[in-house]
Amino acid sequence: MPSVNASAGRKGPEKPREVTDAGEDYANERYGLSSMIQSQEKPDRVLVRIRDLTVRKADDVVWVRARVHTSRAKGKQCFLVLRQQQFNVQALVAVGDHASKQMVKFAANINKESIVDVEGVVRKVNQKVGSCTQQDVELHVQKIYVISLAEPRLPLQLDDAVRPEGDGEEEGRATVNQDTRLDNRVIDLRTSTSQAVFRLQSGICHLFRETLINKGFVEIQTPKIISAASEGGANVFTVSYFKNNAYLAQSPQLYKQMCICADFEKVFCIGPVFRAEDSNTHRHLTEFVGLDIEMAFSYHYHEVLEEIADTLVQIFKGLQERFQTEIQTVNKQFACEPFKFLEPTLRLEYCEALAMLREAGVEMGDEEDLSTPNEKLLGRLVKEKYDTDFYVLDKYPLAVRPFYTMPDPRNPKQSNSYDMFMRGEEILSGAQRIHDPQLLTERALHHGIDLEKIKAYIDSFRFGAPPHAGGGIGLERVTMLFLGLHNVRQTSMFPRDPKRLTP
Amino acid sequence: MPSVNASAGRKGPEKPREVTDAGEDYANERYGLSSMIQSQEKPDRVLVRIRDLTVRKADDVVWVRARVHTSRAKGKQCFLVLRQQQFNVQALVAVGDHASKQMVKFAANINKESIVDVEGVVRKVNQKVGSCTQQDVELHVQKIYVISLAEPRLPLQLDDAVRPEGDGEEEGRATVNQDTRLDNRVIDLRTSTSQAVFRLQSGICHLFRETLINKGFVEIQTPKIISAASEGGANVFTVSYFKNNAYLAQSPQLYKQMCICADFEKVFCIGPVFRAEDSNTHRHLTEFVGLDIEMAFSYHYHEVLEEIADTLVQIFKGLQERFQTEIQTVNKQFACEPFKFLEPTLRLEYCEALAMLREAGVEMGDEEDLSTPNEKLLGRLVKEKYDTDFYVLDKYPLAVRPFYTMPDPRNPKQSNSYDMFMRGEEILSGAQRIHDPQLLTERALHHGIDLEKIKAYIDSFRFGAPPHAGGGIGLERVTMLFLGLHNVRQTSMFPRDPKRLTP
Repeated sequence: MPSVNASAGRKGPEKPREVTDAGEDYANERYGLSSMIQSQEKPDRVLVRIRDLTVRKADDVVWVRARVHTSRAKGKQCFLVLRQQQFNVQALVAVGDHASKQMVKFAANINKESIVDVEGVVRKVNQKVGSCTQQDVELHVQKIYVISLAEPRLPLQLDDAVRPEGDGEEEGRATVNQDTRLDNRVIDLRTSTSQAVFRLQSGICHLFRETLINKGFVEIQTPKIISAASEGGANVFTVSYFKNNAYLAQSPQLYKQMCICADFEKVFCIGPVFRAEDSNTHRHLTEFVGLDIEMAFSYHYHEVLEEIADTLVQIFKGLQERFQTEIQTVNKQFACEPFKFLEPTLRLEYCEALAMLREAGVEMGDEEDLSTPNEKLLGRLVKEKYDTDFYVLDKYPLAVRPFYTMPDPRNPKQSNSYDMFMRGEEILSGAQRIHDPQLLTERALHHGIDLEKIKAYIDSFRFGAPPHAGGGIGLERVTMLFLGLHNVRQTSMFPRDPKRLTP
Repeated sequence: MPSVNASAGRKGPEKPREVTDAGEDYANERYGLSSMIQSQEKPDRVLVRIRDLTVRKADDVVWVRARVHTSRAKGKQCFLVLRQQQFNVQALVAVGDHASKQMVKFAANINKESIVDVEGVVRKVNQKVGSCTQQDVELHVQKIYVISLAEPRLPLQLDDAVRPEGDGEEEGRATVNQDTRLDNRVIDLRTSTSQAVFRLQSGICHLFRETLINKGFVEIQTPKIISAASEGGANVFTVSYFKNNAYLAQSPQLYKQMCICADFEKVFCIGPVFRAEDSNTHRHLTEFVGLDIEMAFSYHYHEVLEEIADTLVQIFKGLQERFQTEIQTVNKQFACEPFKFLEPTLRLEYCEALAMLREAGVEMGDEEDLSTPNEKLLGRLVKEKYDTDFYVLDKYPLAVRPFYTMPDPRNPKQSNSYDMFMRGEEILSGAQRIHDPQLLTERALHHGIDLEKIKAYIDSFRFGAPPHAGGGIGLERVTMLFLGLHNVRQTSMFPRDPKRLTP
């Protein structure tokens, strides 16, 4: 057990003077600053989880390690709220057999967010503790040691950080702005909202892989440092690579396609994607996490489109089944309608979308790309008409898609390409890719691309290439839009944008 | 169905002259170059998998899409080997009711590695086809269309690429050297050996996550572009970030630790790790995939060490249970003893290892790090004594570990740190980390580190930090050593080293 009083020289709540002056503190060994845990011992003591503190444990003596969320002294008593992730319990230190008045004072002076080891008796309460997740019990403290002491001034208050924004303004109480949150991310991530957001995000990755592995996909690892800016050359970060320059991959697409040409047939990968775009919007990051899919098909790229859409549907269903607590926790701070989707997924063609927009008064050319406001408007129109927050927009004009997009054989102005949308915002872009080196060359020339720079890319298709299609999903956007949040920085643990590189 | 003869202008095996001269080819519609698959149609035709071609399908008429692995004309017949990933089947085109002599000639002239659609009857054979995985049947071809034509000259032959190295030398037959393989990775990855290696690697990632998610870990995503070279500054790649410089993360360690300080308790991540090290060895890459773990513990870092070791054991067991075919496929080319491990995992202390090495004649100081040859020797000694290819070496000298390593409270020259080894090579390095900002500052100063550069790192621990430990595993090394391969480039799809940035 970490010894008490071995913490000479470390700042903390001083043991009250009475201890040394009068030597009369009968609880002297029952509280204090622990020495640093350096793996001195392997005690048998079991630490109980706060979420397990229920009436079933009534009258048990338990040890708990938790953060001091709040403390409030009141005469001869001190009430603490002890927190462990999203769970918390009320603890009471009261002068009596176990605690002296010095011990109560010590407990009341422990800085918020410090980590403590507490021994206490679980007691059933008569009146529910409304402010805690464990409402039916409280902990009557017999011993309390500080394991890791927080500094006295926190850069932000957790209670402020979970307050719904509207509430703060109305009641004249503080909320926390985004930069303060991000500058102090270690604390901001401790809130119940952040814990829920990132547990759910971990769930998205898990469901994505689980679904694809069940469908027979193979996970691949693709390099992030590349020798040439293969996708056009704009918006690419340069890396000093020994005596030369290299670049950061803007997507794993070339490598996914090489794996298809290498007969892996169905591949996926999860990894960072880099975009040197000077965009300071709610939905752009310079580094984000791509969930990428590429798949050979037999006859029609809709085979792939349907696999991708179904994968997203499996993710939505899995989240609603397994992460209901997290969804509700986030909703408390950021209210939002439940996410709706259809099975099978709604697929609209671009020309149908154009007709809907035109009927709503938008003027757009047949070969014009969708602006962000028009995407959002379309999302609302689709929601009204089809009652879904998720749909696929198929058959984009060839003119607005990259050179490697397969043209539609029946309409030279259209292409075999698609985007997918959640709550009116794009989360995936994909297409059938050209697998014929001759057509690929023609299309590259048409786009004015220097063939020398994409030689390796084109050469990949020279030794037999199956028809294939794929797409890339932005993880942070899916998390944001599923939860109805409004900024992608809320769903990136350590976001990167043109102005932010820390922490 | 893709139409035949619509491929004017594309190079390929010419239809024999007789067709046009005499007009007598009764099989004219039964073969040829298909037009490019552009998703023209959604036919009902089902493509059968080669691995499903067994006697249970005897006399069925099936369609198969596959690569032409080899073709061999013999009088009025042509024998093809059709390949799909690691499976292959013999196909026969013979002059008769379905095939004309022109059709046989066409089939015999299809370039190797081209992709074809074949309609044929599955026929039971009297004598097993020893050269194919489907030994009990062959396919009697009725129609054959080229879907994607390979160029006539392959940069490497697949049969050469899977030949055991010894065999090639002894028999005077070609093997393929590593640079040729890597320069033409799209073809090299098609071999049965490569298919098996990377399917097994996908399995390692899957088992790693499956085990940790069952243990209650949360997956996190950490940024790769960072503002300061936090881990010392050497061996770091510089990135141009708009008007400033940034760096590529050498590990996710700081971010893993921040997640621990943010109460996620148990986290893991899989992602690229960058090292600007000019090392041209069999086991160094400048970009590799890290499987990283970080975990808060109650009293002793062995709680974490045991979780990590058990995770690796679960991976080894899962591979031996689920990937036996892949292991055997790789063994055919690269013979190797099965991987052995103990449960629970063997843990040796550094001083014990030193004693074993000294007994074997090695002269080493108490605080000296292990050289690569000594690591390998120690691996052999441990294998002899304990019959395991996997073990943990614990309690490294403090002097050879990074500044953030927790010193051993009982012996100031030792530390709470460990490496893990497979077949005598290091695959993981880990430790209890210092979670106290004051001690961390002291140790950084002792190492001569500029405190200003690691301020954000130290500040992460100022608001209450639980004791924690972790480690990082190199995915390519685990794959290499589990399979008994000899170069990490064999287990990286697109390896990066100081001399290689392509493909």
